[in-house]
Amino acid sequence: MAEQVRAIRTRQTILMAAAKVFENRGFQAATIADILTEAGVTKGALYFHFQSKDDLAQGVLAEQDQRIVVPDRPSKLQEAVDTVMLHAHRLQTDPLVRAGVRLSMDQQPGLDRSGPFLRWGEVCTELFTVAKKQGETLPHVVPSETADVFVGSFAGIQSMSQAISDYADLPVRVAALLRHVLPSIANPSVLTSLDLTELRGAAVYTEALAVADAMEAEAVG
Amino acid sequence: MAEQVRAIRTRQTILMAAAKVFENRGFQAATIADILTEAGVTKGALYFHFQSKDDLAQGVLAEQDQRIVVPDRPSKLQEAVDTVMLHAHRLQTDPLVRAGVRLSMDQQPGLDRSGPFLRWGEVCTELFTVAKKQGETLPHVVPSETADVFVGSFAGIQSMSQAISDYADLPVRVAALLRHVLPSIANPSVLTSLDLTELRGAAVYTEALAVADAMEAEAVG
Repeated sequence: MAEQVRAIRTRQTILMAAAKVFENRGFQAATIADILTEAGVTKGALYFHFQSKDDLAQGVLAEQDQRIVVPDRPSKLQEAVDTVMLHAHRLQTDPLVRAGVRLSMDQQPGLDRSGPFLRWGEVCTELFTVAKKQGETLPHVVPSETADVFVGSFAGIQSMSQAISDYADLPVRVAALLRHVLPSIANPSVLTSLDLTELRGAAVYTEALAVADAMEAEAVG
Repeated sequence: MAEQVRAIRTRQTILMAAAKVFENRGFQAATIADILTEAGVTKGALYFHFQSKDDLAQGVLAEQDQRIVVPDRPSKLQEAVDTVMLHAHRLQTDPLVRAGVRLSMDQQPGLDRSGPFLRWGEVCTELFTVAKKQGETLPHVVPSETADVFVGSFAGIQSMSQAISDYADLPVRVAALLRHVLPSIANPSVLTSLDLTELRGAAVYTEALAVADAMEAEAVG
């Protein structure tokens, strides 16, 4: 069991190192040697967990969605809002998330960039499908179409924020996006009850972190 | 005069070659040697027009906005719609535009990516400012904020389309984005008169090309 915990930790160390290298140098310029130096692990340890640079990139991309998630909400529109607000907050604070986004947005030959778009699209399609069933959305909403608009437009807003302010203005830009898009999605009565304020992301992060810590404590104990 | 025309043509040849190389290889991996080979010009000719790889990239970024533009419209909201629809159509068909977008979206060290976002932001701010003065927008619209949402969300939609379908589904995605965002921008009476259909981009392109050809003929003659 102790060995398993150590293996998980080594894998995490390697992924964090890979994230930092991918974020700073990009996928194409990054080398396994850079990542080894950054991680401070042996070549053997790295290749035990990851077959190649591409495998490392896929690992970073997969990891960014899995550790911290928005808790279930009665309102699925608020849950969708919280999902992008939380992601915006983590982009400001977490190198793993920043590297994942850089890998998704860069057009690198040999790396399939569609995965994160499709995964986020599925998550949002499910949220909007339930929201529609619950009567939260306007009747004409097509969940998969609205999900794609939601995911795609957020991806661009974060890219613009990165280019202009290195993410400093991201919460303000995301709040503006949501104020523009949600009136075409939500029933007016639901719309007025949604929290779209800029500070929402940090609050959801604190909440999600507490949930993640509790689950980790349970898993270890 | 003939010499000037030749110089303009050579500059254009170099920019098209640079665009192709940047689109295929990315800024970081591209070399001046690649661009020389692709353009079929001498080193002297290239350095007469461009000082460095960075200068070439800035040239491609500047060029993408300048050749073909949407003609003036009485409705500035339709003009804003036509601007993104035209850009979407050109992404499907013009290597210079594709390279420009790739350079803007890739996070490359040593290349300032903010320029195109800021320029498109200014263009749209002006359109929404006039639209508001003309009573086309809802009263609460803040032109610069709406412009940033418009530009940023479009950037992400195009990136998602590139990743998933290599731009094949771009007009459909852009039309969906506009249907989601414009009800928060336009007065209801104006909204119903806007053409947001997927075929709009190709139609505006044909129109803009005719205008560009007429202006070029005038400049040469």
